[in-house]
Amino acid sequence: MAGGVKRVLAAALESFVAEIFVAAGTPEADAATVAEVLVWANLRGIDSHGVLRVPGYVGRIASGEFNPRPDISVVADLPAATLIDADRAFGPVGMSRGMDIAIAKAREAGVGVCIVRRVTHMAAIGWFALRAVDAGMIGLAFGSSRPNMAYHGARARGVATSPIAIAVPGKRAPVLLDMSTSESSMGRIMLARDSGTPLQPGWALAEDGTPTTDADEARMLTPLGGAKGAGLALMFECLTGVLVGHPLIATAIGPDAETRHSQNGFALAIDIASFAEPERYRRDIAALAGALKSLPVAEGHDAIRLPGERGERTMAERLEAGVPLPAGTWRRLAEIADGFGIAMPPVVEG
Amino acid sequence: MAGGVKRVLAAALESFVAEIFVAAGTPEADAATVAEVLVWANLRGIDSHGVLRVPGYVGRIASGEFNPRPDISVVADLPAATLIDADRAFGPVGMSRGMDIAIAKAREAGVGVCIVRRVTHMAAIGWFALRAVDAGMIGLAFGSSRPNMAYHGARARGVATSPIAIAVPGKRAPVLLDMSTSESSMGRIMLARDSGTPLQPGWALAEDGTPTTDADEARMLTPLGGAKGAGLALMFECLTGVLVGHPLIATAIGPDAETRHSQNGFALAIDIASFAEPERYRRDIAALAGALKSLPVAEGHDAIRLPGERGERTMAERLEAGVPLPAGTWRRLAEIADGFGIAMPPVVEG
Repeated sequence: MAGGVKRVLAAALESFVAEIFVAAGTPEADAATVAEVLVWANLRGIDSHGVLRVPGYVGRIASGEFNPRPDISVVADLPAATLIDADRAFGPVGMSRGMDIAIAKAREAGVGVCIVRRVTHMAAIGWFALRAVDAGMIGLAFGSSRPNMAYHGARARGVATSPIAIAVPGKRAPVLLDMSTSESSMGRIMLARDSGTPLQPGWALAEDGTPTTDADEARMLTPLGGAKGAGLALMFECLTGVLVGHPLIATAIGPDAETRHSQNGFALAIDIASFAEPERYRRDIAALAGALKSLPVAEGHDAIRLPGERGERTMAERLEAGVPLPAGTWRRLAEIADGFGIAMPPVVEG
Repeated sequence: MAGGVKRVLAAALESFVAEIFVAAGTPEADAATVAEVLVWANLRGIDSHGVLRVPGYVGRIASGEFNPRPDISVVADLPAATLIDADRAFGPVGMSRGMDIAIAKAREAGVGVCIVRRVTHMAAIGWFALRAVDAGMIGLAFGSSRPNMAYHGARARGVATSPIAIAVPGKRAPVLLDMSTSESSMGRIMLARDSGTPLQPGWALAEDGTPTTDADEARMLTPLGGAKGAGLALMFECLTGVLVGHPLIATAIGPDAETRHSQNGFALAIDIASFAEPERYRRDIAALAGALKSLPVAEGHDAIRLPGERGERTMAERLEAGVPLPAGTWRRLAEIADGFGIAMPPVVEG
């Protein structure tokens, strides 16, 4: 296969990844959740947030940044809102717990919120929003983390590329918006670096904060639309980190900067049945999708797509053909697996 | 004063505008609310959403699109979420009712949501988010309306420039993000038209959906960052219009398009005291603001600003010096006032 890419069936990849996290000290159910979210990211084509993260996660368990056996506790519990402390749990573990709480609250109260304090890397945030859709609800999730993006008007990191995901059920597939608050993404920067092509102007800054189109020099992303993306990312920090006494931005700026990995998350579920007949809702979302897809296509585009549509198609393809793993990812996974005495998953013959 | 601009003190302008709406059939309390929101927009420097809208509002009362005496009713009421039908109320009347309900819910349940169906033009959406801050809470508001922005990948209107506002209390002033989901704004297009300068590439499309930098040809705005802004605007329609049986996009596309003005709104309040000590929260927001403002300033910028900071400064200036009204706005207000036999407000001597 091209460039040494190996393909592995999703189920086999998931078992393999779960086995690694169990070997690293994670309870089986939690290891399965982390594996499911990472492989889901690969299936949707978001490879930068998929199993290539496994070695980093294992390293952060060793360094104490990620806690494989967290004591997740309820800090505040209101009729429609809960604050939990995730005790440095894996993002997928802490955030799925958070969304489950939000869903349960929404079933009683119409809407439910759970703020998840001191969680770690969330992998693909869209997965948590879809968890609400699986429960017949609308899901919304966002997060905050240490600054890795320039603040608007500054030539230094001031906010994070904090993502937001919103998912609603449709007639066949859900509509899933899953976006960062940055103009571009580190994935695209890395791709440009690997292919030797210049970046689009406005995507990135060098370490000294000056704009650059040289992928090798790029060190910081820029906020989506300048003030707007920076503002959204800042408000996500205000709605999570600052609100729950675990600020991640103010503490990371200045001489005594705290830079250890940490995140906070926000999960919101809206119970559709409280407002509408659910079947009618799914039909109306399908009608909206149909209306948009029937608009005239702009030059330079091959089709009009709903949020998440591309991911759905990639997932269908990869479920059938297996998840492609580049040679570097395969090699790094093999090193980790070797250390734990775990066999690599079977490769799909091409 | 330059270009025939007249300055009017905010209080006098507010009384004048309220008087006009009373004369047009609006109950006094509601007229005062509409006047307050419109003048607030002027005070903050958002003149495109201020009192220049008065003649249009009066015209839409006459056409039946705006209802000055709405029968606002509760359609669904859950412990933390309410759906109200605004019966074509003025946006400020329907949305302030909605935010008040969200605030009351949040006081009991930690968070509260109110979806406002069949409301009309909201003027400045930030005002509703600040209403929650006045109650010691975090406020979030967004809306959906008829498509006036190209959908990503389409060369036709498919979504609205739907705004979102998020406000949190700070030590002195609140932090208020108030942004549209479009790359630019109609205000900036109009400014370019008036000053004869070209638009930035990517801001607008002509009526046939092709990109243009000619302000006179510009008919549609483009979504912020392409897919991201279009996706956010689409999700706002899914979370309001479609959810409450009053879709505004699907019904506006196609041969039998419904184009009468209408909007839906979403108001969310988060009770800070449920999660944190309110005074500590305001202090931490101030610390975050301080940390960001101490970052090195990028070339081409004179300062690092928090969302809403510019508006706060403009408000302080205009509260002192009066709200500037261009000659055209003054003339159109005078025509309306004359029709109702109402005297124009006193002008500040310069």
